[in-house]
Amino acid sequence: MAEGIEIICVGNELLMGKTLNTNAQWLSKRATVFGIAVKRVTVVADEVAEIASVVREALQRKPRFVMTTGGLGPTFDDKTLEGIAKALNRKLVVNEKALRMVKEKYDAYVRTEERLEMTPPRIKMATIPENTVPVANPVGTAPGVKVDLDGTILIALPGVPSEMEAIFEETIASLLKEASGGNVFSEKSIYADDIMESALAPLIDKVMHDNPAVYIKSHPRGQENKPHMEIHFSSTASVAEKLEERLQEAIIQLSSLIERTGGKAFRDDQAIC
Amino acid sequence: MAEGIEIICVGNELLMGKTLNTNAQWLSKRATVFGIAVKRVTVVADEVAEIASVVREALQRKPRFVMTTGGLGPTFDDKTLEGIAKALNRKLVVNEKALRMVKEKYDAYVRTEERLEMTPPRIKMATIPENTVPVANPVGTAPGVKVDLDGTILIALPGVPSEMEAIFEETIASLLKEASGGNVFSEKSIYADDIMESALAPLIDKVMHDNPAVYIKSHPRGQENKPHMEIHFSSTASVAEKLEERLQEAIIQLSSLIERTGGKAFRDDQAIC
Repeated sequence: MAEGIEIICVGNELLMGKTLNTNAQWLSKRATVFGIAVKRVTVVADEVAEIASVVREALQRKPRFVMTTGGLGPTFDDKTLEGIAKALNRKLVVNEKALRMVKEKYDAYVRTEERLEMTPPRIKMATIPENTVPVANPVGTAPGVKVDLDGTILIALPGVPSEMEAIFEETIASLLKEASGGNVFSEKSIYADDIMESALAPLIDKVMHDNPAVYIKSHPRGQENKPHMEIHFSSTASVAEKLEERLQEAIIQLSSLIERTGGKAFRDDQAIC
Repeated sequence: MAEGIEIICVGNELLMGKTLNTNAQWLSKRATVFGIAVKRVTVVADEVAEIASVVREALQRKPRFVMTTGGLGPTFDDKTLEGIAKALNRKLVVNEKALRMVKEKYDAYVRTEERLEMTPPRIKMATIPENTVPVANPVGTAPGVKVDLDGTILIALPGVPSEMEAIFEETIASLLKEASGGNVFSEKSIYADDIMESALAPLIDKVMHDNPAVYIKSHPRGQENKPHMEIHFSSTASVAEKLEERLQEAIIQLSSLIERTGGKAFRDDQAIC
């Protein structure tokens, strides 16, 4: 069974550093909480050939989900669906259901008897790869797109964060939840002073060896000569209760190893041991 | 001549959504300002095989630069150099120069006659792929790594932002500047009210057609039914002065097209036309 998710973010503004990629973080957090591991995040330009390559490469790795963000709007450089069509070797067609969705939005916007004309940029938002399904956008105009491809579900979401998040919560979250088979993810951080990362490393090794289901990673927050360390514990399991116990055991073991070397371990402002 | 840069960010904390990828934005901004286009950003897990695949794929696309961030530290899951060694089919070796760099740091940290022991985690930071060059880290312990590969310069930087930025500014920025041949990048945003993105699209098309060296992208900041649009203009050129004129011409043309449709265009709080 295919596992995990790949996220593809489309947008020159990301590659220019104009925009911070908060969408990737938001989606990663949501997938992780559902127990679906994020395998890769790729950011590409608004170019059809580039988008098609990245989508094709992701599909070849056969994750359970491939999710794109960005490039669904009405402007000439919203090219994600063209890229996906190319990757899937399908035509772009005006989808009747998508067209109704877009029309209804514009009708609601004007709120008069006069209806907004369906200009080419507006019709573009309803033009999706053939044999794919439009997904309602509760807060914006461009629908998302979904297609099941031999075990991988490919989903295209808009780049405007509020729209991406709304479509995800309304339609996509339940797919991830179902795919994870009820897995739950949990994480906790503790902090350590007076121990260098290089001295902490073998202690973490030992605790991960003794607690194979817990993943531990140190993040230096001070400097090596004035060490302040965040230590992040995380785990995925099918029962939430065991998960908390599991993290707790690893935290207590590592904390006492740190104290034994003369370091201080604490959670927020409280000592652990 | 190879062009552009690919950025590879290594770290489970990014894929879990624990950490926002500010490193990718920071590097993208700096490269773009030097006139070097960022072609792709990839985020991968702390796994040797994954890192090796992503590095190999990036090198196959032959950009001028491949830059990695993260995974250079002393802990077991700092695996970037192992991944790069695998991608290049080279051995990992203790580099004498890197070892001196790491030793000097630890000697400075303790500031006594007693010297810190060079434990395996500390030696690990000086263990780099053979025939690569360690790059001094002005603010942390782990050196960066640099290697010229048949037209592509591969650079590994740490993931701690202050360390990554310091190594970049001290050693890498000049390489990018040189590669760009003195190109300069400039950008400006204007804002527009009372015009929908779908109505703006053909106007942007026209202005980009008339100003082929200027790239224009609209970013909806309101909602389609209460449109507030940021419109971002950018361009790269060899002479800074012409660049500003070029952006200015495109801005004036698009602003008057917007006003003609009944919309309002402004820069910060001032009307443009």
